[in-house]
Amino acid sequence: MRATLIYGAGDVRVEDVPDAKLAEPTDALVRITRACICGSDLWPYKQREATATGDRIGHEFIGVVEEVGSAVTGFGPGDVVVAPFLISDGTCEFCAEGLTSSCEHGGGWGAGTDGGQGEAARVPLADGTLVKLPVSADDPLMPSLLTLSDVFATGHHAAICARVGAGSRVTVIGDGAVGLSAVLAAKRLGAEQVVLMGRHPDRTDLGRSFGADEVVAERGEEGATRVRELTGGNGTPAVLECVGTEQALETALGVVRAGGAVSRVGVPQYEKGRLDFSHVFFRNVSIVGGVAPSRAYIPELLEDVLSGEIQPGRVFDRTVGLEQVPEGYRAMSDREALKVLVTP
Amino acid sequence: MRATLIYGAGDVRVEDVPDAKLAEPTDALVRITRACICGSDLWPYKQREATATGDRIGHEFIGVVEEVGSAVTGFGPGDVVVAPFLISDGTCEFCAEGLTSSCEHGGGWGAGTDGGQGEAARVPLADGTLVKLPVSADDPLMPSLLTLSDVFATGHHAAICARVGAGSRVTVIGDGAVGLSAVLAAKRLGAEQVVLMGRHPDRTDLGRSFGADEVVAERGEEGATRVRELTGGNGTPAVLECVGTEQALETALGVVRAGGAVSRVGVPQYEKGRLDFSHVFFRNVSIVGGVAPSRAYIPELLEDVLSGEIQPGRVFDRTVGLEQVPEGYRAMSDREALKVLVTP
Repeated sequence: MRATLIYGAGDVRVEDVPDAKLAEPTDALVRITRACICGSDLWPYKQREATATGDRIGHEFIGVVEEVGSAVTGFGPGDVVVAPFLISDGTCEFCAEGLTSSCEHGGGWGAGTDGGQGEAARVPLADGTLVKLPVSADDPLMPSLLTLSDVFATGHHAAICARVGAGSRVTVIGDGAVGLSAVLAAKRLGAEQVVLMGRHPDRTDLGRSFGADEVVAERGEEGATRVRELTGGNGTPAVLECVGTEQALETALGVVRAGGAVSRVGVPQYEKGRLDFSHVFFRNVSIVGGVAPSRAYIPELLEDVLSGEIQPGRVFDRTVGLEQVPEGYRAMSDREALKVLVTP
Repeated sequence: MRATLIYGAGDVRVEDVPDAKLAEPTDALVRITRACICGSDLWPYKQREATATGDRIGHEFIGVVEEVGSAVTGFGPGDVVVAPFLISDGTCEFCAEGLTSSCEHGGGWGAGTDGGQGEAARVPLADGTLVKLPVSADDPLMPSLLTLSDVFATGHHAAICARVGAGSRVTVIGDGAVGLSAVLAAKRLGAEQVVLMGRHPDRTDLGRSFGADEVVAERGEEGATRVRELTGGNGTPAVLECVGTEQALETALGVVRAGGAVSRVGVPQYEKGRLDFSHVFFRNVSIVGGVAPSRAYIPELLEDVLSGEIQPGRVFDRTVGLEQVPEGYRAMSDREALKVLVTP
C-alpha cells in the first residue's frame, strides 16, 4: 500500500510500504478515507534531521473498518470510524478519568504502528481508541468529523483546561487551525468575549465567523496592551495559547488577568518558561493545558457536529490526494494553506 | 517607638523610629501585641545587598486598635485585630472575587508603611484589611490566630489551588512552617493521603501530628521515586511546593501524577522553570498557586482556630521580645528555630 514518510526537514515522501494488517487480537484494520496534516507535523517538517530511513507520519484519520481481531467487540467490517490522534485502551485508571492522552497502554501513531497519512492503518486497542460514526464514509460532514480526531478537540481542551464557560472572557493566541478551533470551542462553551490575536486577515476572518468578538493583529507588548484595552484593563481570566513558542507564552502572560489561567495547547518549542515572582506567582496565574485527550471529548463534540450546531471543518481550505501530501506539507509550511485535508 | 529594620544580609536591627500615627481617614493605628518572622523574611536576610539606610520589615501581626481615621467604620479603639500580610481595600473587583492579594489599591507592609515587627503600625485601608478577633489580646489561642496572617493561610492556599478536598492524595514538599501548615490544611480539607517530603525529624514529627501519613526524607530523584512507590506508582494529583527553589519545583514535577497540579506557595527564587513537553505538557500537569489572599481566607479559618479544631500555632517553637528579633532571624536562618513568635 501507499503511505507517507518523513525523511527530514522539507522531505516528505509517499512510498510503497507493507500492507497494514492485524497483529494483535485487539487490533482493527481500517481503510483510510480521510486524513489531514497537523500543525504539529510541521515541527519535524521544519527541523527534523535528515535520515536514510523515513518514519511514518500522520495521526488524524477517518476510515472504514475492514477487519477486526478476535478480541474486538465494539466494531466490525463496514463501520465508519474516527481515530483520535493517540491510541488508548479505554480501561486504565487514566482513561477512566478521561485523561486518555495518558493511557497506560496507549501511545502515538507512526512509531511501531502505521501513520495516519496512508491508505490503511492497523489500529491497536481498537475498542478503546476508535469511535463509530453514524454516517456514510462520504458524508458531507466528513471535514468537521475529521477535526474531532485532533484539531477541534485540541481547541476544546484549551478552553476546558482554562475553565471557559458561560460568560467567560477569553484571549486566543494564534490564528492557526488550533487557535481558530479554540475560538469556536470557547464560544460553544458560552464565552461572552473572545479576543483573537492573529495577523493573517483571511484566518482571523474565519475566526470572526467562528465567534471572535475582537481581533488584535499587533504582537508582543503592543498586542498585549491592545488586548488589555479591549478587556477592561486587566486582561482576560482565560488565555488559550495555541502556538507553542516561548514568545507566545510571554504574550499570554501579558494578557492574562491576575488569578487567571494560561492554557497551552501548542506543542511547546521550549524547555523552560517564565514562572517568576511578578508575572506569574504574585498574580496567581496558573499554567494549564497540555496534550488533548481527544478520545474522551469525541462523544460530546460529535453530537454538535452531527446536528450542524458547529462546523469546525471550515478550517480545511485545501484538499489533496495521497500522492500530493508532500505538496500539502509545503503549502501549510509556507502558509498558503491553513489546514490540508487528504483523501487517500 | 521601636521597630525592626533590615540593612543587608545578616543585618537586622531594632531601632528608634517615628511613632506610628494616622495619615489617611481610612487608617487605623494598631498597637502590636504579637508578631512573627516569616520564611520569606529570610530571603533578604540571606542575600540583601547592604544599604546605609534600613527598610522596615515584618508583615504578620496581631494587635489592639488605638485610634481610627474618620472613614473607618468597622473598628474602634480596644478592638483586637489580626492583619493579613497584604493590605487590601475589600471593595475592588479582585477583592470582591476573593483575590485580595491582587487588590487594586492594596500593597505590602514596610514600603511606605510601617513594618509588622515593631511596637505599632499604621494600617492603611483598615476596613478592608483587618479582621476583628473575638478574644482578648492575651488569649492562649494567640499563636494559632497569628498564623492566619500568613503562614497557615499560605498552606491553605496551596491546598485550595491544587483543589485538595475529600479523598485527595497530596504530596507536600518542604518541612518548613509553610509546608507543615500545608499538611494541616490538606488534612482539614479532607485529604486521604498526605506525603510530607522533609528531612528534619523534629519538623516532620510535627508534620505527622498535623496529619502527614508518610514522611519521605530522601531528596531529588530518589525522593520522587520513594513518593511514587508510596502513592500507587504514578505520584499524587496534588503537589504542594512550599520551598520556592527550582530544585523543589523539579522534585514536584517528579512526584505529580499526570493530569495533576503543582501548587507553588514558596516564593520562587528563579525566573524560569521547566514547562517542557515530556514532564509538563504531555502529562497535562498544571502549575498553580501564588501569593495567598489570606485576608479572604481568615473568616473561614478563624472559626476552626476558635473552636480548637486546628492548632496551626504549633509551628512556633520559640518566642522572643522585640529587642531580640535579630536573634530570632539568626535562629531561623540557622534552622535552630522553625518559626519565631515576637511579643513586642
